[in-house]
Amino acid sequence: MKNLGYYNGKFDELDKMMIPMNDRVHWFGDGVYDAGPCRNYNIFAIDEHVDRFFNSASLLDIVMPVTKQELKNLLNELVQKLDTGNQFVYYQVTRGTGVRNHAFTPGAGNLWVTLVPAEVSDGTEPIQVITEEDTRFHHCNIKTLNLIPSVMAAEHAKQKGCKETILYRPGGRVTECAHSNCHIIKNGKLFTAPTDELILPGIARAHLIRKCKELGIAVSETPYYLKDLMEAEEILVTSSSNFCLRVDKVDGISVGGKQPELFEKIRKAVVDEFITATNVEAGKIRTAS
Amino acid sequence: MKNLGYYNGKFDELDKMMIPMNDRVHWFGDGVYDAGPCRNYNIFAIDEHVDRFFNSASLLDIVMPVTKQELKNLLNELVQKLDTGNQFVYYQVTRGTGVRNHAFTPGAGNLWVTLVPAEVSDGTEPIQVITEEDTRFHHCNIKTLNLIPSVMAAEHAKQKGCKETILYRPGGRVTECAHSNCHIIKNGKLFTAPTDELILPGIARAHLIRKCKELGIAVSETPYYLKDLMEAEEILVTSSSNFCLRVDKVDGISVGGKQPELFEKIRKAVVDEFITATNVEAGKIRTAS
Repeated sequence: MKNLGYYNGKFDELDKMMIPMNDRVHWFGDGVYDAGPCRNYNIFAIDEHVDRFFNSASLLDIVMPVTKQELKNLLNELVQKLDTGNQFVYYQVTRGTGVRNHAFTPGAGNLWVTLVPAEVSDGTEPIQVITEEDTRFHHCNIKTLNLIPSVMAAEHAKQKGCKETILYRPGGRVTECAHSNCHIIKNGKLFTAPTDELILPGIARAHLIRKCKELGIAVSETPYYLKDLMEAEEILVTSSSNFCLRVDKVDGISVGGKQPELFEKIRKAVVDEFITATNVEAGKIRTAS
Repeated sequence: MKNLGYYNGKFDELDKMMIPMNDRVHWFGDGVYDAGPCRNYNIFAIDEHVDRFFNSASLLDIVMPVTKQELKNLLNELVQKLDTGNQFVYYQVTRGTGVRNHAFTPGAGNLWVTLVPAEVSDGTEPIQVITEEDTRFHHCNIKTLNLIPSVMAAEHAKQKGCKETILYRPGGRVTECAHSNCHIIKNGKLFTAPTDELILPGIARAHLIRKCKELGIAVSETPYYLKDLMEAEEILVTSSSNFCLRVDKVDGISVGGKQPELFEKIRKAVVDEFITATNVEAGKIRTAS
């Protein structure tokens, strides 16, 4: 198959799949998701992603229709059906089916999966970004389907020929991007926003922090501000689609680029971890099928 | 028909309707809606609702697939199909169809309608509410489908046997409820939160203000706080489902009830306007069909 959509036990190509109108996602965006890359039919960091997915659901009292192991088995089964082993593996749960009513619909949620061909960037190409005030709700630690502010911020970046939008709260505190985390290098240290309710606890972010520590680079999880961003030695943008990107322009102004060797060390460590974990040789699933 | 769902030209009973998986509402809650009551097949205040609906879409750069007049014609046609003329008329537009990508999918949005039997409360029965901190985004003036915080707040109210949740920002400023506007009577005047980005410009709210002015009751659209709420002479909750409700308990504490005659004057004026406008005799559509 060229791509795949799954909903509560049924699957087909994405544009053939249909969803009942009474799914609560239609009225409230009432659901949570998670997603990550797959290479050579190996889903990367699946345990971490599935743990976060269940945590997001739990924070909103959404009842999961499967166990963690059942979900992992399902995802590992479904990725085999695509023509390519390099995919973006996306899954969500929505809070049940019923006539529109704000209060919860009782029972278990609906399980969705989508698979599309995708490659992870190796991060050697720098990106340009814009900045915007962060007007989102105070639940950004939960990976919800309430993403209109991120949609708007991503579209604004695109309209300016940029790849991402760095968001800041009133007072200039940098939180994260429209769909990535954001970090700076300052005095040779990595600074990244703390994991409070204003940012997503990114899994690529966690891997970045771990790799920095392995490389002997100090990490500070403390708030930093627009001024720090513009004066940073390097600006890094990480996500599960693109593990480690370097920013060379913010709002059209040249930034970073003052620690190219340090950035390269970090980039290589993060990308190498993914490549090693997803080499065909390591593909337990593919070889087992 | 007992109820009705409509999507891009097709309609059927709600639980038979199916939506393409690639509608962007599924990944981002990327859409806006409006809704209001219908009595005797007369849709109440349709011009005001449709104007606000188009305004919400415009604020998010969603391209409407119909004109205002086409939408009104469609709604007036569809309400005729239900077995009862007393309905809740709900419609939304979602930002197109395409494989998941934060930046906009080009082209016109998808148009949805749902109709279910519903009666409007006459407001003679007081309600009980709880309070909660308002953690929503700063786009509450737009009637979006990003409603998870409202869903959670409504569920918390239900769990405590209450009908609504009054929300307040840090510092105690009262904004609105999970799915209604909120107002207080103090010194015989109506106080209601101003229409900034923290509240929805409710149409029932607008009618309430107009009726108060007609009755010679002063109206102040200025912020008020939890302390004002608890000391209010009356607390009013308004929405297009329930025009004018009186709150008699907040978080289990008895409140209001100090201006019963004034409340009754307001309630009667607001409800009478609806009843008069939607009497069978006034039913232009039903008699024309």
